[in-house]
Amino acid sequence: MQRATFKQTHLLGIEELSVKDIDLILETAESFVEISTRDIKKVPALKGKTVVNLFYENSTRTRSSFEIAAKRLSADLINFNSSVSSLQKGESLKDTVLTLEAMNPHVIVIRHPASGAPKYLTTFARSAIINAGDGFHEHPTQALLDALTIKQKFGTIRGLKLAIIGDILHSRVARSNLILHHKIGNQVNLIGPPSLVPREFERMGGNVHYNLREGVEGADVVMMLRVQAERGAGVYFPSIREYRKYYAITPEVFSLANKRAILMHPGPINRDVEIDTSLADSEQSVILQQVTNGIAVRMAVLYLLKGVRDETVD
Amino acid sequence: MQRATFKQTHLLGIEELSVKDIDLILETAESFVEISTRDIKKVPALKGKTVVNLFYENSTRTRSSFEIAAKRLSADLINFNSSVSSLQKGESLKDTVLTLEAMNPHVIVIRHPASGAPKYLTTFARSAIINAGDGFHEHPTQALLDALTIKQKFGTIRGLKLAIIGDILHSRVARSNLILHHKIGNQVNLIGPPSLVPREFERMGGNVHYNLREGVEGADVVMMLRVQAERGAGVYFPSIREYRKYYAITPEVFSLANKRAILMHPGPINRDVEIDTSLADSEQSVILQQVTNGIAVRMAVLYLLKGVRDETVD
Amino acid sequence: MQRATFKQTHLLGIEELSVKDIDLILETAESFVEISTRDIKKVPALKGKTVVNLFYENSTRTRSSFEIAAKRLSADLINFNSSVSSLQKGESLKDTVLTLEAMNPHVIVIRHPASGAPKYLTTFARSAIINAGDGFHEHPTQALLDALTIKQKFGTIRGLKLAIIGDILHSRVARSNLILHHKIGNQVNLIGPPSLVPREFERMGGNVHYNLREGVEGADVVMMLRVQAERGAGVYFPSIREYRKYYAITPEVFSLANKRAILMHPGPINRDVEIDTSLADSEQSVILQQVTNGIAVRMAVLYLLKGVRDETVD
Repeated sequence: MQRATFKQTHLLGIEELSVKDIDLILETAESFVEISTRDIKKVPALKGKTVVNLFYENSTRTRSSFEIAAKRLSADLINFNSSVSSLQKGESLKDTVLTLEAMNPHVIVIRHPASGAPKYLTTFARSAIINAGDGFHEHPTQALLDALTIKQKFGTIRGLKLAIIGDILHSRVARSNLILHHKIGNQVNLIGPPSLVPREFERMGGNVHYNLREGVEGADVVMMLRVQAERGAGVYFPSIREYRKYYAITPEVFSLANKRAILMHPGPINRDVEIDTSLADSEQSVILQQVTNGIAVRMAVLYLLKGVRDETVD
Repeated sequence: MQRATFKQTHLLGIEELSVKDIDLILETAESFVEISTRDIKKVPALKGKTVVNLFYENSTRTRSSFEIAAKRLSADLINFNSSVSSLQKGESLKDTVLTLEAMNPHVIVIRHPASGAPKYLTTFARSAIINAGDGFHEHPTQALLDALTIKQKFGTIRGLKLAIIGDILHSRVARSNLILHHKIGNQVNLIGPPSLVPREFERMGGNVHYNLREGVEGADVVMMLRVQAERGAGVYFPSIREYRKYYAITPEVFSLANKRAILMHPGPINRDVEIDTSLADSEQSVILQQVTNGIAVRMAVLYLLKGVRDETVD
Repeated sequence: MQRATFKQTHLLGIEELSVKDIDLILETAESFVEISTRDIKKVPALKGKTVVNLFYENSTRTRSSFEIAAKRLSADLINFNSSVSSLQKGESLKDTVLTLEAMNPHVIVIRHPASGAPKYLTTFARSAIINAGDGFHEHPTQALLDALTIKQKFGTIRGLKLAIIGDILHSRVARSNLILHHKIGNQVNLIGPPSLVPREFERMGGNVHYNLREGVEGADVVMMLRVQAERGAGVYFPSIREYRKYYAITPEVFSLANKRAILMHPGPINRDVEIDTSLADSEQSVILQQVTNGIAVRMAVLYLLKGVRDETVD
């Protein structure tokens, strides 16, 4: 495929990608979408390669998505469970990764609570590093799978208006999407209470709205974020009930969006908290399609990265 | 093989199977028994297929048995660890499974504390669902591997008398076995204290016995159930010691059974609680053979189910 | 390769190996080192074989090393997680292993807190048993990967002087290394406080030193052991600070060793506790090379063992 033209050696964030890179990843993913619908879903593109899942936060969804993606490319996948690892013995992230690297994996997929951890790894690691979510910073494969879903629905990812609703401040999903869509010239509305949507986001190209209806009006894409009840209630907003009153998406509010608008959510959803059950299960909802596209996008990223340092592959 | 004649799309319980289905599974399993004794134990029957282990209860034995079975069929096996999953974030079983399904697996093997959970999944899932134990309801692959073991010993599963001993009330193993052997016309004695063997089981075709000796007399198959000390003692029976006095199997009691009788147990056994060590390790014991047959039966079920929705496979 | 000449059916400890066995394992490992540097790291030597990781102590490093080794040989690898297993239901080690064996694996890799557990398994198990660390007894693959690293540096493992420093008493790494190097005629100095280096080790061929400088002088290999702060401080030595003062390796102490001396550590290291950061990251340090060699040595052991009972393989 188009491997030769992908210049990245890691996937740290959308920030680091050119628009051309983004388009290439999406095109490559589209070819893998087809494979995922086949009965035999396997291709030998990463046969004999080792991919390590190094997750410092629990996430069965994302971890499994990378695991399935790697296995469908015929790679060997090692889950390096940090919770029972030498981490508990006080080993530093650097020493853990240097140890891992000494086992000669090709790719390390890392999720870490510290923003910038994946980038830090690239200062000393030889493997391709994929950021699977770092602190409040970026979650690039999520923004890419969202973009693929948008492309499938609208035929393009350009010329669109997005409304992202919720805890923008603590959401790496929101940040990666904002960066991606600002980069390609889309309008991005960021909607939530002032405590969760600081004005600073305007410097990154977002339009800050505190009023849900105003923010959603005319949007092509309505992207809900998960309310992390354990984090926000009582600190950033008075209560779930208050939050829901002002920022939950309901059929009535959704009707203010563009007629052909789609409803997105990175999951897991809180039914009848940030999103009405009727909407979550509606025709407009593409939430499960996002999950499906996660496999294809991660296959694409693994495929485009894995041969980066090899001259002779394929 | 005989794929064409298997009409099931899921394996929910023995209840749902016809006698013909049961015979077909056992015959298919017999051909896999042979493979498991080979040095190279692998066949390509499920190459490129994805099997998910979705276990909501800890069970290394059953989980590993399905994992080995899937891998020997060349499937990719993903362990979806519910204890660290989005479950903890309050996601419903339905949303978890819909998310999983969006990753396009072929089979979901589920163990769940709620009776009926696997059946519930079939109301919305597209994958083949295999019940690996649901609450106090059914554990069909256990009854099938038990049946395979019986068939290997007696040459048939018909015309036999079974004695099942222990906590019948809370045992999905007992239920699945009762259903299976009642279906094929075998006599099934259910033995235990009245608190654990309610008369209701007679409506399912069992013969209730409170006296161990009476129940075991003339049996071809003596099947012990595990005493779950943490559950029963003090509630359903006064103490382990009391229980043991009346319902443990000893060589002396076992001698009342048919001369060629076999001793079964789903494991893990409590040595010298429900079963005497000398009996557990005796020639009559087929406990480890049951484990071996677990692989073959699960291979057979995966093999028979996996192509159900495919027209073009094999 | 040289399979025919390997007479062992298990790898229980260095104690059980002849010098010829050790040489054979190292030579075989050297051929796998080459494979691990290839882009496609996979060979089909154990295709269709099942290797079980049965770990009763947490160790992501060693477990992952065996997992990668097994997968690079094309084996199926099953992690049998004892912490969530029937162990918790009170099942004995013997019953757990008999159950596992009934699933017909080819190799069981066991780590267990009880010294002698792997040997106990061989009294009833049919699989090849590999000791991945048992109590305070042995950790043979560690000593073998250390030996491979030494061989790569010095061109030979013979005619060398080793200094092993730290908690010798509780270290299976120290014991396996002492046995190996005593067997091939190397001088082994054991250094630490009297509470951690009892005179008994002299009967095993070690030279006991309580003075770090004296012990390190002229050594070719300086091997640090991990300070297990949670175990030792306050019992075997007054405090980490005291310990560090007398038994940490610093550039100044290391300069007393042979000019071409190498610095080893089984990991994970405690930076600036038993080892100065500047030394850990120095040219003399081979700590990461040890990790890399771990894969090759474990591939070699799996390769040499797996066909032991087969006549027709390869």
